[in-house]
Amino acid sequence: MINKLIANIKKTNAPIVVGLDPMLSYVPEQVQQKAFAEYGETLEGAAEAIWQFNKEIVDHTFDLIPAVKPQIAMYEQFGIPGLAAFKKTVDYCKEKGLVVIGDIKRGDIGSTSAAYATGHLGRIQIGSKTYVPFDEDFATVNPYLGSDGVNPFIKVCQEEKKGIFVLVKTSNPSSGEFQDQQIDGKPLYEMVGEKVAEWGAQCMGDEYSYVGAVVGATYPEMGKVLRKVMPKAYILVPGYGAQGGKGKDLVHFFNEDGLGAIVNSSRGIIAAYKQEAYRQYGPEHFGEAARAAVEAMKEDIAGALENR
Amino acid sequence: MINKLIANIKKTNAPIVVGLDPMLSYVPEQVQQKAFAEYGETLEGAAEAIWQFNKEIVDHTFDLIPAVKPQIAMYEQFGIPGLAAFKKTVDYCKEKGLVVIGDIKRGDIGSTSAAYATGHLGRIQIGSKTYVPFDEDFATVNPYLGSDGVNPFIKVCQEEKKGIFVLVKTSNPSSGEFQDQQIDGKPLYEMVGEKVAEWGAQCMGDEYSYVGAVVGATYPEMGKVLRKVMPKAYILVPGYGAQGGKGKDLVHFFNEDGLGAIVNSSRGIIAAYKQEAYRQYGPEHFGEAARAAVEAMKEDIAGALENR
Repeated sequence: MINKLIANIKKTNAPIVVGLDPMLSYVPEQVQQKAFAEYGETLEGAAEAIWQFNKEIVDHTFDLIPAVKPQIAMYEQFGIPGLAAFKKTVDYCKEKGLVVIGDIKRGDIGSTSAAYATGHLGRIQIGSKTYVPFDEDFATVNPYLGSDGVNPFIKVCQEEKKGIFVLVKTSNPSSGEFQDQQIDGKPLYEMVGEKVAEWGAQCMGDEYSYVGAVVGATYPEMGKVLRKVMPKAYILVPGYGAQGGKGKDLVHFFNEDGLGAIVNSSRGIIAAYKQEAYRQYGPEHFGEAARAAVEAMKEDIAGALENR
Repeated sequence: MINKLIANIKKTNAPIVVGLDPMLSYVPEQVQQKAFAEYGETLEGAAEAIWQFNKEIVDHTFDLIPAVKPQIAMYEQFGIPGLAAFKKTVDYCKEKGLVVIGDIKRGDIGSTSAAYATGHLGRIQIGSKTYVPFDEDFATVNPYLGSDGVNPFIKVCQEEKKGIFVLVKTSNPSSGEFQDQQIDGKPLYEMVGEKVAEWGAQCMGDEYSYVGAVVGATYPEMGKVLRKVMPKAYILVPGYGAQGGKGKDLVHFFNEDGLGAIVNSSRGIIAAYKQEAYRQYGPEHFGEAARAAVEAMKEDIAGALENR
């Protein structure tokens, strides 16, 4: 699947991923009202609203981008109907040829991590039948529990040719509280990065490993170090746009081949119609606004990479 | 909710929690066949089988125990139907007067952690209506992202009088890979423990905080240290039984008042009928076997606490 991700990036010439993290407040009034008219002001109604919202965003951007990253928390907050909308979104994006990165940040021990890996990337045997429960292409994984928590994901990735992105240095302000702590003169995130390189050696695609890393755009200097620590790991870079990261901050996340990183923007794309720059589209044309924001993001990153 | 947990522990005289982590392989043939006859060999069939299995376990143990801890991964692996069985289990256990600890190990940043907190412990506004999506009493939380990831849970706990258990030192063999690393002469888990004490000071019940910690039974010496580092935190102790922890290993997780810790057993209880010691019950009476295993566990821990 890392090969498909890279092929998609080359085809679209866009190392970007659109974060499908719909808050109900991002969904324009007309979409909400239509969903509530059909399902009432219920969890089902909210789930229908975010699904219709996602569909419109995807329909307006899929030809420009290689991948999407639905954040499962935004669906889980609407209970079972919300998770059904997550699944519907995953399936629809795959139909459209997009690589789907499930931003699930799971991580547990042994058989429990194996269950998450099965649920999100693998298949489950029930009697004589086999099912693919959520079926994302990639998942994000939390490393706090060590190899026991990560290896079951790697095993499923090897079987299914899928991939993971392990949290190394997250984009949030307090990420340094534990991740930046010095251990034998090296920060914890670097130690986790070394582990990512080690885990990744077990499952290589053509050029890059199936085991990637998450490193926030908000910490470009650390990105520079981590790029060298794990040269074969694809880096998923959140924090662009709404969280403050800019194209020029991102150049060191990429390798010399122009590959090796994929930059996420969520709010900045899906709620673009609420920004001053795209206000002319209005809430009726939020899909077009998202498309314009994708184009601007592509240009920003391409420009930064050309001028490095 | 910490007050209710403590009241339940005093009432049952049992500082234990039963982990409702059903693998399909634990579910006796007759339960599986009945579910498959009704729903086919489908995700729905598997979900029905684990729900009926859970119900039987709960019906045979609820009067002896204060709390249950369903591990959401075991449900998530069956997709949407599995998560519906999780929700059904949460609701049923609450009806029976049990405190429900959702073992979800979530943790993300800002609005995303807020979405998880809303989904699992809080309520969500949809138009003019309000819903409680999963509605557990407690949730487990991963600290790797720092305060940004934990504070949104604490906010919801304050509003809803619910609680969390933060992963401090997990029970698995590789937990030391990152958690035991020395930082200024102190292991990372101790630093996380100090943070738990700090976070917990913001939301105190009568005697203990709403912010507890997870510390594995398999590391009793570390439990002894952490008990002192976070005196007001309830410690959720996994790793008893099947993972190797014994009653005598657990005494230092408790405070002098006999409170402060709650010990989890999953497989050791719910799949007791498969063990040599309870084989006489047979798969038909797996509920009775679970009850006998709960009684033995209560005795083991009570004995250890008396002799300390």
